[in-house]
Amino acid sequence: MKLLTVGTVAFDDIETPFGRAEKAIGGAATYISLAASYFAEQVRIVSVVGDDFPESVLQDLTSRNIDLAGLEVKKGEKSFFWAGRYHNDMNSRDTLETQLNVLADFNPILPEAYKSSDFLMLGNLTPDIQLSVIEQMVGKPKLIALDTMNFWMDIAMESLKKVLKRIDMLIINDEEARQLAGTYSLVTAAAMIHEMGPKFVVIKKGEHGALLFEGENIFYAPALPLAEVFDPTGAGDTFAGGLMGYLAMTGEVSFENLKRAIIYGSAMASFCVEKFSTERLLNLSKVDIDARIDKFVKLVNFDSIPV
Amino acid sequence: MKLLTVGTVAFDDIETPFGRAEKAIGGAATYISLAASYFAEQVRIVSVVGDDFPESVLQDLTSRNIDLAGLEVKKGEKSFFWAGRYHNDMNSRDTLETQLNVLADFNPILPEAYKSSDFLMLGNLTPDIQLSVIEQMVGKPKLIALDTMNFWMDIAMESLKKVLKRIDMLIINDEEARQLAGTYSLVTAAAMIHEMGPKFVVIKKGEHGALLFEGENIFYAPALPLAEVFDPTGAGDTFAGGLMGYLAMTGEVSFENLKRAIIYGSAMASFCVEKFSTERLLNLSKVDIDARIDKFVKLVNFDSIPV
Repeated sequence: MKLLTVGTVAFDDIETPFGRAEKAIGGAATYISLAASYFAEQVRIVSVVGDDFPESVLQDLTSRNIDLAGLEVKKGEKSFFWAGRYHNDMNSRDTLETQLNVLADFNPILPEAYKSSDFLMLGNLTPDIQLSVIEQMVGKPKLIALDTMNFWMDIAMESLKKVLKRIDMLIINDEEARQLAGTYSLVTAAAMIHEMGPKFVVIKKGEHGALLFEGENIFYAPALPLAEVFDPTGAGDTFAGGLMGYLAMTGEVSFENLKRAIIYGSAMASFCVEKFSTERLLNLSKVDIDARIDKFVKLVNFDSIPV
Repeated sequence: MKLLTVGTVAFDDIETPFGRAEKAIGGAATYISLAASYFAEQVRIVSVVGDDFPESVLQDLTSRNIDLAGLEVKKGEKSFFWAGRYHNDMNSRDTLETQLNVLADFNPILPEAYKSSDFLMLGNLTPDIQLSVIEQMVGKPKLIALDTMNFWMDIAMESLKKVLKRIDMLIINDEEARQLAGTYSLVTAAAMIHEMGPKFVVIKKGEHGALLFEGENIFYAPALPLAEVFDPTGAGDTFAGGLMGYLAMTGEVSFENLKRAIIYGSAMASFCVEKFSTERLLNLSKVDIDARIDKFVKLVNFDSIPV
């Protein structure tokens, strides 16, 4: 089935304890679509770049069956740019610079064919833009998922609450969940977020894995313990992309299938952090992915024997 | 089989956002033995208290088939005392007061019958005391496990390294593992700790669960996501007690069986934090424990379907 994703396609300057990358390829839609491309029948992007964005990268995406009909290239303008520096623990980072550039007046217009996509993943953008995309869809997708961040809770909470009523699944990190719900316990936070709209709540905890909530049902997916995290940039978007790609491949929206989707998302994220930028996501094989999934199965599998 | 544990039996003053308990029953050996008593054939304690320690509590322990032949009661002296205050997130705490009292010159002497115990759990104490207990054992137990803390790494690292060579399993938290190995990655830390002696390394991550390492093999046990953590005191010792009790019940030392043991430890810890002090550990039923284990199975279980 077909997955539509809306989000940034951008440049990142990244500094980690392992090195530095300038003008690396980044952006939520980039990571989401690459990760999903290993599973979905087709991935479609709605986004905007300047004419400084390399044609070769767009070809990389196209060659992975990612449809760029909804990617606007603005002549004479520059692509969105973010610069950040990771701390030694790789779990926290400082934003050094953000240049909105083409994103400043981004007003996504969906190509006709996109409007009936089976699955919709709204990457982190202003809630108003996310809502306008939902409103352009014809018929209800099987599942609408949304990512957001603290920044929008600070300056656009009312708009965010409006869009939360229209989605099926929220994918955010632990700190964002706590801020959105105004409570420390993630179990309580998830229950409060359910009340705001989303039937499914996915809370990402970085190296500590992710939790999936549907009412009283909870699933805990671990992150793969890694000796080295080379560059965490895009790991969250890659997780969402793997998850949504798996749903688009299997077509089934249920708690049981979402569990598997989250394991696939976690596996894709574990590849993402092994190299700078999107590098590791360009040429994975089925063997690579199957072997990684097998590691996750081994990591959590135990035979339960009643006492 | 029989489990011997050495550790404190003590009083705690505890302050949490939910309330305050004065002179609550605490101590590593108390929590370890109570948790293990649900599984092991018999639990034996080596410890010391003053004559201020309530006889009724000792009766509670005895009634759970915990052997107190190795518990010295020192006339005219006071029991070990700790006072602490938990922060709002319940993940960090300040020590307000520590009174060593009877612990200042604790020199554990093992009753003859204890020396051939099948399993040995060394609770957090000075490494010299832990070593002296190992040296009193007759024959090698099936498994020796040890808990320690940053404090001993700061002031007694050489003694600690000596005792690490004599044990089979180290059970510590993530910050302690990082300090002991001098590295941030827990995967690398576990590999370095293996080199120091222990074949098995268990790293506790509080609300994020626990990792078991045996060489290249890794197992990730989640913690149960809870809406409320009432009092985290003793959760780590309860985890170790459930784990060692399960081993003593089943008698099998293998990676596969240790995985199950860690799930049982995690289940017992999830009970511990539901009430102040040891209260929740005094009257659990088999039905309570089986239902809790079932929650852990549901929490991590997923059907893996190859793509």
